[in-house]
Amino acid sequence: MKPRIAYLGLGGMGAAMARRFLDAAFPLTVWNRNADKARTLVDAGARLAATPAEAVADADFVFTMVSDDRALDGIALGDAGFLAAMKPGSIHVSMSTILPTTARRLAEEHARAGSGYVAAPVFGRPSAAAEGMLWICVSGNDESKARTLPILEPLSQKRVDFGLDPGGANIVKLSGNFMIAAAIESMSEAFAFAEKNGIDPAQMNDFFGNSIFACPIYKNYGRIITDAAFDPPGFRLALGRKDVELVAETARINAVPMPILSTLVSRFAARVAKGGGELDWTSIALDVSADAGLPPRGKA
Amino acid sequence: MKPRIAYLGLGGMGAAMARRFLDAAFPLTVWNRNADKARTLVDAGARLAATPAEAVADADFVFTMVSDDRALDGIALGDAGFLAAMKPGSIHVSMSTILPTTARRLAEEHARAGSGYVAAPVFGRPSAAAEGMLWICVSGNDESKARTLPILEPLSQKRVDFGLDPGGANIVKLSGNFMIAAAIESMSEAFAFAEKNGIDPAQMNDFFGNSIFACPIYKNYGRIITDAAFDPPGFRLALGRKDVELVAETARINAVPMPILSTLVSRFAARVAKGGGELDWTSIALDVSADAGLPPRGKA
Amino acid sequence: MKPRIAYLGLGGMGAAMARRFLDAAFPLTVWNRNADKARTLVDAGARLAATPAEAVADADFVFTMVSDDRALDGIALGDAGFLAAMKPGSIHVSMSTILPTTARRLAEEHARAGSGYVAAPVFGRPSAAAEGMLWICVSGNDESKARTLPILEPLSQKRVDFGLDPGGANIVKLSGNFMIAAAIESMSEAFAFAEKNGIDPAQMNDFFGNSIFACPIYKNYGRIITDAAFDPPGFRLALGRKDVELVAETARINAVPMPILSTLVSRFAARVAKGGGELDWTSIALDVSADAGLPPRGKA
Amino acid sequence: MKPRIAYLGLGGMGAAMARRFLDAAFPLTVWNRNADKARTLVDAGARLAATPAEAVADADFVFTMVSDDRALDGIALGDAGFLAAMKPGSIHVSMSTILPTTARRLAEEHARAGSGYVAAPVFGRPSAAAEGMLWICVSGNDESKARTLPILEPLSQKRVDFGLDPGGANIVKLSGNFMIAAAIESMSEAFAFAEKNGIDPAQMNDFFGNSIFACPIYKNYGRIITDAAFDPPGFRLALGRKDVELVAETARINAVPMPILSTLVSRFAARVAKGGGELDWTSIALDVSADAGLPPRGKA
Repeated sequence: MKPRIAYLGLGGMGAAMARRFLDAAFPLTVWNRNADKARTLVDAGARLAATPAEAVADADFVFTMVSDDRALDGIALGDAGFLAAMKPGSIHVSMSTILPTTARRLAEEHARAGSGYVAAPVFGRPSAAAEGMLWICVSGNDESKARTLPILEPLSQKRVDFGLDPGGANIVKLSGNFMIAAAIESMSEAFAFAEKNGIDPAQMNDFFGNSIFACPIYKNYGRIITDAAFDPPGFRLALGRKDVELVAETARINAVPMPILSTLVSRFAARVAKGGGELDWTSIALDVSADAGLPPRGKA
Repeated sequence: MKPRIAYLGLGGMGAAMARRFLDAAFPLTVWNRNADKARTLVDAGARLAATPAEAVADADFVFTMVSDDRALDGIALGDAGFLAAMKPGSIHVSMSTILPTTARRLAEEHARAGSGYVAAPVFGRPSAAAEGMLWICVSGNDESKARTLPILEPLSQKRVDFGLDPGGANIVKLSGNFMIAAAIESMSEAFAFAEKNGIDPAQMNDFFGNSIFACPIYKNYGRIITDAAFDPPGFRLALGRKDVELVAETARINAVPMPILSTLVSRFAARVAKGGGELDWTSIALDVSADAGLPPRGKA
Repeated sequence: MKPRIAYLGLGGMGAAMARRFLDAAFPLTVWNRNADKARTLVDAGARLAATPAEAVADADFVFTMVSDDRALDGIALGDAGFLAAMKPGSIHVSMSTILPTTARRLAEEHARAGSGYVAAPVFGRPSAAAEGMLWICVSGNDESKARTLPILEPLSQKRVDFGLDPGGANIVKLSGNFMIAAAIESMSEAFAFAEKNGIDPAQMNDFFGNSIFACPIYKNYGRIITDAAFDPPGFRLALGRKDVELVAETARINAVPMPILSTLVSRFAARVAKGGGELDWTSIALDVSADAGLPPRGKA
Repeated sequence: MKPRIAYLGLGGMGAAMARRFLDAAFPLTVWNRNADKARTLVDAGARLAATPAEAVADADFVFTMVSDDRALDGIALGDAGFLAAMKPGSIHVSMSTILPTTARRLAEEHARAGSGYVAAPVFGRPSAAAEGMLWICVSGNDESKARTLPILEPLSQKRVDFGLDPGGANIVKLSGNFMIAAAIESMSEAFAFAEKNGIDPAQMNDFFGNSIFACPIYKNYGRIITDAAFDPPGFRLALGRKDVELVAETARINAVPMPILSTLVSRFAARVAKGGGELDWTSIALDVSADAGLPPRGKA
């Protein structure tokens, strides 16, 4: 019989991954702070747990995908936390974008408690999750990773092992999100530059997205920017800012000067300060444009 | 019979394109400041001219690919310049990375002289030029573009028309080079961040180059950085700095605030100030690394 | 009889202030993690306590001047902390450069414990402290401030009340240290610019320090930079970096974009990463100079 | 009899200095593009010339104070320029904020023409000019400076010699204006930081302006910012931007990385792009504030 899975955190990404497990016939228990979001999964055969601890009681693998470090600590630790309720030998597969230091601390707690911890942050949007086309970075101890990797197959087109440090995969995730945010800012600046010189940003983006920058980030985010398709958000700016700040906090600890990161820190702070945190994170382009004195770019 | 072509400026890019014309059986006359670089082309059938003016005398299309605005003005204008020597109705196809303002000024001079001007800056490295796989942006008046586009086929996999403004294609070229330089800085920062946290930048680059950033710029430049393969340069840092400064000058004229560009201005200035202008432009990664207190990354 | 004072934390600033109290005939008990630093004060009549709790037992005012938030929490809180040992109605005068949030939290703890809390960070160097010429910002509840202000007179030429928020004076202190660090960076850039153009930075600094910038920060720090007098440090760079990071942390919480602060974050991180944390904080000028390709500026 | 003076350029600064010469009984001829501005001076005894060349015909010293390099070239050079009209041995005292390279080029032209050139940019506002309280930096050949220095006395409280390079004094002027703009940005950031944390920027500025930053730049500009007294401008933002760009251009030529300067380049460009070029240059504070989500600071 297939291993039992508990999935905690059913936002857009988590719900899509949980569904993949269900479709692949894994016995699945789910939990979410707001239980309404579990309804579709329950209709499709998942068991709904009332608490994180209840959800993990008989699970072989416990997946978590929550909004931040504090949310993860909140459901994992303490007397009511799920960590203490996990079966000996079961494994926590931690997918949230969190600090490497949080990952390391949790891994130690798990080791003390007799369970495993594998960091497994993902790249890809909800649509990619729904199709099992995510890219997943893993790190942690080798035995736990060996047991976890096959379980990740229904979710992903590729899984890469970044070593023993439980925080390692989070470093890669943070690096990637930083590079994505940098690409968004870079496109925004180039588009404002082009537009102020009479060049249509959409045409330019199409050209680059089919030549030197023919990759998902530039093609997709470039189009969102030139279409001004910021609402509803694919990834909320407030969450993007959280990630940028996790990079900044980690860079501070390690003393890594990162000037583009500094630009992003200011850019995302301004957007939030001015009340734009609920739009897509590409909406920093609005401020880049406004600073250049350009009128708002409209949807066609 | 095929139109007669004059090619002025035989650096790595120019020589490769001239060779493509020769191989496609266009009658070709070449000129270069240092005539030694023309030898291989002459051996293969090109005619060598002693001056730019002599080179263009019977040409239908005059291609120029020189290092900067001043070099282009130097060969085009004045009594000894080639502009005055061009046949009525012939077309100057201007491929150098220059200021839009320079392009506009030259286009006017050509109009007065009875010749055409098409801006046609290219994307791609010498190896892509040799294989006819460049991407070319064109702009200028429609009749000149219509006559020029078929001539560009032996050089390129794609040609895109960016309108009537003779400076338009240069805006796209400058935007692209800005975005490339931004990607180089962004990767450099991410690699330093990763390395200081125990992650191998080469493995990380391989992961991103095959997933969210699966495009030439990230794959190729990422590998050059992680291999520290800065010498011999694919594109000299001093030239890269020139392009960054052309963007800055154009952004100044149009009042476009571009914070990532500002970071690049400082980064490239520092490299040149410290004597690193002859390495590849990706070598800004050396300073990003050094600022993070990392030891120099070595070639395998 | 004069109120009894306990002074905890005898670095350069703390020791100088403690001495002022002794000279003004206040009964004084002192404590320092490294008791050796208390010797001179004990020789001059201070009582040495073995622990922070012992030091404050009969004190009317407890002054603290320690290196950071963690050090302050460490001696104040917990079973062995001094907070629980303070007399009812006594006042903690908190002079360290700490986060406003730390100040607010401590003020609440004191309120619960029946003691008062006044934030009283200072501006001025140890020599100014020794002469009672500091500038002090205070904030906190009015009754505690009213009792504290007269006690601060032997230390300072000026005391300014910044309101009821116990974190308010820390905001002013952090703002001031940010502005000082910005002035250091700004002078460093101007000096490199001038030097590379053949102007002697020392002569230029002398000119500005006696005209438009005739104030202590520019005169004193400017001279330290042009003399390259970074060792021994007046204020250690590692501590300066801590302050810059406290501003960054507070700006993050409040979403205040501060681009010059971002420059400082990178600048100080680089210096620490490269091993320069023990020099004076003005030594960021070394990196500004090196980035401009200038040789190290020598001491006369 | 006193030397004859021609004063070209009667903006706020130029008119005030011309008046000082008149009050000190120097024979004075004036010229301004808009002759209306000369009326008060003519009423007080100045002679009005119809052209720059006519103005300098019998002058021993020709003062120029115009808006930029182009304006200076425009009146100095060419057949109608004043340079060719100057008496042999007369001296051009050049007070405008211009590029060092422009100064060097003009000095050579004067040398060829048999006249002298002294760079003499000034610090101080129109009110200081009116009281003869400017600070003046001079540079150029020693004989010309020796003759010029006494003539500057009615204008200034201090004159400092920065050597033989005719561009040297301009380097000092550009350095100073950069440092002033940096101080404006630094105060603006600190004020937004303080305000968002409940501290009154005006009270904080008063505190710093009477302690660690007790100098004209911080006191005066700080008050303009906290009073939001941007209109009418003391120094137009568009002119301030011009100066920031002159620093950037000179730093580019010399390869001096200046990150705070980069921040200012973007900041001033944004203000101009958004249509704020006519306010005082301290009005960059408006954008710093807005980026922090603060409401506009109003005058009481």
